[in-house]
Amino acid sequence: MTPAATVMERCDILAACTEEPGRITRPFASEAMRRAHVYVHEWMRRAGMTVERDNIGNLRGRYEGTGAGTFLLGSHLDSVRDAGRYDGPLGVLVAIAAVQQLHDADRHLPFALEVLAFADEEGLRYGSTYLGSRAVAGKLGEDELQRIDDAGLSMAQAIREFGGDPGRIADDRWTGEPPLGYIEVHIEQGPVLESLGLPVGVVTAIAGQDRMRITVSGEAGHAGTVPMEQRRDALVLAAMFVVAVEQEARRRPGLVATVGRLQVEPGASNVIPGRVELTLDVRHADDQVRLEAARRMIDDAHALAEGRGLTVEVHPMSERAAVACSPRLTSMLRQAIGESAVQLASGAGHDGVYMAEITDIAMLFVRCKGGVSHNPAESVSTQDVGVAIDVLGRFLELIAKQ
Amino acid sequence: MTPAATVMERCDILAACTEEPGRITRPFASEAMRRAHVYVHEWMRRAGMTVERDNIGNLRGRYEGTGAGTFLLGSHLDSVRDAGRYDGPLGVLVAIAAVQQLHDADRHLPFALEVLAFADEEGLRYGSTYLGSRAVAGKLGEDELQRIDDAGLSMAQAIREFGGDPGRIADDRWTGEPPLGYIEVHIEQGPVLESLGLPVGVVTAIAGQDRMRITVSGEAGHAGTVPMEQRRDALVLAAMFVVAVEQEARRRPGLVATVGRLQVEPGASNVIPGRVELTLDVRHADDQVRLEAARRMIDDAHALAEGRGLTVEVHPMSERAAVACSPRLTSMLRQAIGESAVQLASGAGHDGVYMAEITDIAMLFVRCKGGVSHNPAESVSTQDVGVAIDVLGRFLELIAKQ
Repeated sequence: MTPAATVMERCDILAACTEEPGRITRPFASEAMRRAHVYVHEWMRRAGMTVERDNIGNLRGRYEGTGAGTFLLGSHLDSVRDAGRYDGPLGVLVAIAAVQQLHDADRHLPFALEVLAFADEEGLRYGSTYLGSRAVAGKLGEDELQRIDDAGLSMAQAIREFGGDPGRIADDRWTGEPPLGYIEVHIEQGPVLESLGLPVGVVTAIAGQDRMRITVSGEAGHAGTVPMEQRRDALVLAAMFVVAVEQEARRRPGLVATVGRLQVEPGASNVIPGRVELTLDVRHADDQVRLEAARRMIDDAHALAEGRGLTVEVHPMSERAAVACSPRLTSMLRQAIGESAVQLASGAGHDGVYMAEITDIAMLFVRCKGGVSHNPAESVSTQDVGVAIDVLGRFLELIAKQ
Repeated sequence: MTPAATVMERCDILAACTEEPGRITRPFASEAMRRAHVYVHEWMRRAGMTVERDNIGNLRGRYEGTGAGTFLLGSHLDSVRDAGRYDGPLGVLVAIAAVQQLHDADRHLPFALEVLAFADEEGLRYGSTYLGSRAVAGKLGEDELQRIDDAGLSMAQAIREFGGDPGRIADDRWTGEPPLGYIEVHIEQGPVLESLGLPVGVVTAIAGQDRMRITVSGEAGHAGTVPMEQRRDALVLAAMFVVAVEQEARRRPGLVATVGRLQVEPGASNVIPGRVELTLDVRHADDQVRLEAARRMIDDAHALAEGRGLTVEVHPMSERAAVACSPRLTSMLRQAIGESAVQLASGAGHDGVYMAEITDIAMLFVRCKGGVSHNPAESVSTQDVGVAIDVLGRFLELIAKQ
């Protein structure tokens, strides 16, 4: 069996570790995660690693080197509800496969390798993302432990039941010598590699993101009796805004902007909409471009509203700055791929966002069918996974040669 | 107390006949309606009328004339949920006030007057509108009696409990000599009279209406990872359609078009909308104008979708032809108002739609504050109600002089 076929089989095995029969749902610190850990622990062990679980619930496999220093590899084991089988686990299993190849050849690099299988990146159970990598980066505040899940169980209780000590999360923080770097393999979750016909791509940066909630207030009225010129239809204004957002986004290469949620009140077929609430999500690898575009979109909303006697309120929800991948590591990753290496930004967030707090990061994207993710239809090919394993192996050799 | 003040007081009394304490909800054949009937019956009697209740539950007050023939006046006593106090009752009470003035002067016109207080126009209880006027027009099919309300009670049972015979609804049909005409006083439910500074207006027609459900299908995707030029965002297309609908509507005087409901799937802030379902409501007093506009809007939807690789499905929900008011009666109504008479179409449906099946109809609109209806904020002024009573009285005198 090839290393890639093994990775594919293991993705299937982890997919069966789920809270919901018939679909993949593997939340933080769940029984499903406990079963996944039994497998991943064993696979790490077989690859010559010593394995530990930290307090937040990350599984950490360590493969010693001939010299000092540690290079980190990782991704997350948790999933969204009704997930695909590759978002997260693929990166953990490709990392284990790369270590396995060294172990099979009885080779050790001049530095140790540590595979981090993060406990939570999606935030399904507690509505707070990146729990695993935040703990490693020392950025998980104690207040987070008070969060309550749908069953009323606090995060502290969940950690305790899973076998961790919620009072010692600070111990999960990386200490001692800074790591030599961090690399994560992940499915692209977008259609770019597929449209270019390439198995893998190099990530330049994890895009920054603005999220906001926008409320348009007009005046409800009877759909039959209020003449067009006397209306203050909140949906017409919201529609003009959605169109303007798309135009602004298309004007700027690499920018994506999305109105994903839009709710109309009162929402009856015979009533003029009086109020619309919508969300705007703007992302770009360059924070300046993103901020300028978001400001322009908000200006558009206010200008449209003013022209029609409506009001617009903008409520910021979150802002995340872009995280650049290390030019040094990225250049080595390109070298490991060879001539066909393409670079792309990641529009989605990843554990690398927090790992960048403690070390240089790099990311390798693997082509996924139709760009689909967070969905059972998520699909990657064994061949592309083979390329990813090879690229990761060559990348580690290049680091070792430095 | 002036006749107008009496009408206003009676509107308040009927507002207290409700199924829901604190708000006005008076469904078909309800206990609240039974209490309303006790009052209206008494007010009809005091105005010199003999009163009967038919099988569907219309209260009919008859004021005899000196000669043959009957002129009908009416509106409905039922309400929507959390209603205002004037939509419906005002027309019944203004009609009673007009008869009261004849009775007080001991006068009879050359024809009888019959005030019809319809049992149901809004359709709140059984989801089927115009029950009262349909029974009078002989257009209420027996199959309607099988409808079930939220409590599981059939319309036939409700009619029986209210005191009618569901097997004899056909007897409610107007028989014998055709009526001389029908006039209905109703709040405008729109802002036109208010913006013109006029107390009343003459209705030329009850607009025809097209209602349809439109489904836009694109492709959902990750809001961070799918480049703008690779998206098939159903909401962007729906937004372009909403904007196009408004433009088409503004181009045609008297046309109103409304997208009142719009639902986005999956509807998450970080997911590109894959599907949008929306409603379109198009109304105009001239069926040709309405049909041409609706066709044009649907063509726009298909053209927009084709240009972007999405699909649009149009599901007709209902179509109602326009109902013209009688030019003869309308001209007399204008004469009764005098020089300030303005004409406007009714965008909302009224019992006149069915009364037009058996006789000529006319309608008088009364200004309402802010054009608001179907809402506790519904408001009319005593002064305007006084004008309506006077106009109705003069109108009947003009008919009598013919």
